[in-house]
Amino acid sequence: MIKDYAVGIDIGGTSTKFGIVDRKGNILEQGRIRTDIHENAEDFIEELYDNLSLLIAKHGGNEKFKGIGVGAPNGNYYTGTIEYAPNLKWKGIIPMANLIEKKFGIPAKLTNDANAAAMGEMMYGVAKGMKHFITITLGTGVGSGIVIDGKIVVGHDGFAGELGHVTVRPGGRLHKGTGMRGSLESYASATGVRETAIEFLTDQPDAPSLLRNYSIDELTSETVFKCAEQGDAIANHIFEFTGEILGEALANFVMFSSPEAIILFGGLTKAGDLILKPTVQAMEANLIQIFKNKVKILYSDLKEADAAILGASALVWEAEH
Amino acid sequence: MIKDYAVGIDIGGTSTKFGIVDRKGNILEQGRIRTDIHENAEDFIEELYDNLSLLIAKHGGNEKFKGIGVGAPNGNYYTGTIEYAPNLKWKGIIPMANLIEKKFGIPAKLTNDANAAAMGEMMYGVAKGMKHFITITLGTGVGSGIVIDGKIVVGHDGFAGELGHVTVRPGGRLHKGTGMRGSLESYASATGVRETAIEFLTDQPDAPSLLRNYSIDELTSETVFKCAEQGDAIANHIFEFTGEILGEALANFVMFSSPEAIILFGGLTKAGDLILKPTVQAMEANLIQIFKNKVKILYSDLKEADAAILGASALVWEAEH
Repeated sequence: MIKDYAVGIDIGGTSTKFGIVDRKGNILEQGRIRTDIHENAEDFIEELYDNLSLLIAKHGGNEKFKGIGVGAPNGNYYTGTIEYAPNLKWKGIIPMANLIEKKFGIPAKLTNDANAAAMGEMMYGVAKGMKHFITITLGTGVGSGIVIDGKIVVGHDGFAGELGHVTVRPGGRLHKGTGMRGSLESYASATGVRETAIEFLTDQPDAPSLLRNYSIDELTSETVFKCAEQGDAIANHIFEFTGEILGEALANFVMFSSPEAIILFGGLTKAGDLILKPTVQAMEANLIQIFKNKVKILYSDLKEADAAILGASALVWEAEH
Repeated sequence: MIKDYAVGIDIGGTSTKFGIVDRKGNILEQGRIRTDIHENAEDFIEELYDNLSLLIAKHGGNEKFKGIGVGAPNGNYYTGTIEYAPNLKWKGIIPMANLIEKKFGIPAKLTNDANAAAMGEMMYGVAKGMKHFITITLGTGVGSGIVIDGKIVVGHDGFAGELGHVTVRPGGRLHKGTGMRGSLESYASATGVRETAIEFLTDQPDAPSLLRNYSIDELTSETVFKCAEQGDAIANHIFEFTGEILGEALANFVMFSSPEAIILFGGLTKAGDLILKPTVQAMEANLIQIFKNKVKILYSDLKEADAAILGASALVWEAEH
């Protein structure tokens, strides 16, 4: 029997999204469960099974399914394990692909969530047909997926592509999660934008800003975006500052792997040109001649939830290519 | 007839080395000509042919040769061209592989000189058997070759792997060749070490140092090494400073491609532990947990001239694998 479908599962710190995907990349069904209420991975898989097995049955049962693809933070493609993920409650090394395969009776593959998203872009998004590109998620954190010669770069140990943690400002801002200083994630994430906002507002106490009308808890990247749209100088400067650091980092990535495009997605991209313009400008300014005006910076055109599910499901079809 | 031999040619700014190499990586013959005395590529190829054709004839003539491999600055693997190489007199785009192929009547392939060196390490050096590694040349400049899944990374346009030009100190030291600020090459090269020496000696005019016994023209990385070996504090500090910046950069490279090893070669490696220790320490300090204590930093065990010739010749055999 032809196996027409794949399951895509995107495990996030708060919630886990899943869907049934056909070979054309249509998401036929989707759902989500909470991740963070489950103290251990086994309980989590029980709830996942309760929800997902109904959808699988509805589409012809196990024999119609070629596999289950999973994207997860700190997911290791080689071993199918989730290792020491700081955003998950489950500590240590979780053999997630194995556990899912046993529970569902369907072959399972797992990779890093950002790598899964890159795969989604390659099969169904703006990177369709590209052999060399990098995806950067500008969300709560900064994730990345690197594609070289049409393959996701996983490196020697399966963990390659942690571009959010590269140092962009030596000795700079402290990243509370990693204890490192000056990483890309500490600036070019929603969390980073919030920190920049607090820094700018406290460092320039006399500068007027719409941002001062918000409580400290309300100072999110969304608030900064709203104020910037209304022409607020500090809010605009926050995006310029963020884009400048992001652009510098992108230039370094380009001189490493010389991609055709860098694809940005995640919450911060909602700021549109406010962040894109300074990013492109800083990237070009930091490239040596042979790389200038060659690399496209694109926004993903996949819906974020879809990209994650599609990307995870793409793991299943990948082996066929 | 079995084609037993390959020619390896390493084109450098000052001189060009070449050799006849067998399938086991033995260099049977070698020679060198000046590069910089030839105003155009055609004249250069004439002299190359005059020297090399004798060696080819001695080993059975063209029919015994599978190909000619060339490593060159700004060499493009896809097109076989040398493009806008700042260290060569020949301006614009030189179709070097084509010109050589026509002149010799033997198929020629070309790549970036640093990529050729990486290939040499993979086939005959300390990277033998490794699928994921990065080579960094610490010479007059900083070159790099990146290997992922057993293949040199050339990227979308053939120019990937310019790690000497990544920014490591935003707004930092000016690189006179590129006009960029704070690049790895402006610190972690022989030229960079010399600049650091001049900076340290002028910034701390009262600090005693053996380096003050040398004229400004004599302040080379070799002089700094000699003085550091004799326990000179400033000379030692120069290597610590250099190693710290290099190590930070290596940490960023590791979080990109997660290699099994980083292989250093070039003149600066003669400083041995003086530069290796601070490099390793800074690299480890700048890695997030999952990458710590995993990546080997090795010195190449190939003779430098040999590595370049072997690497270039490896281009010829590569297609057979």
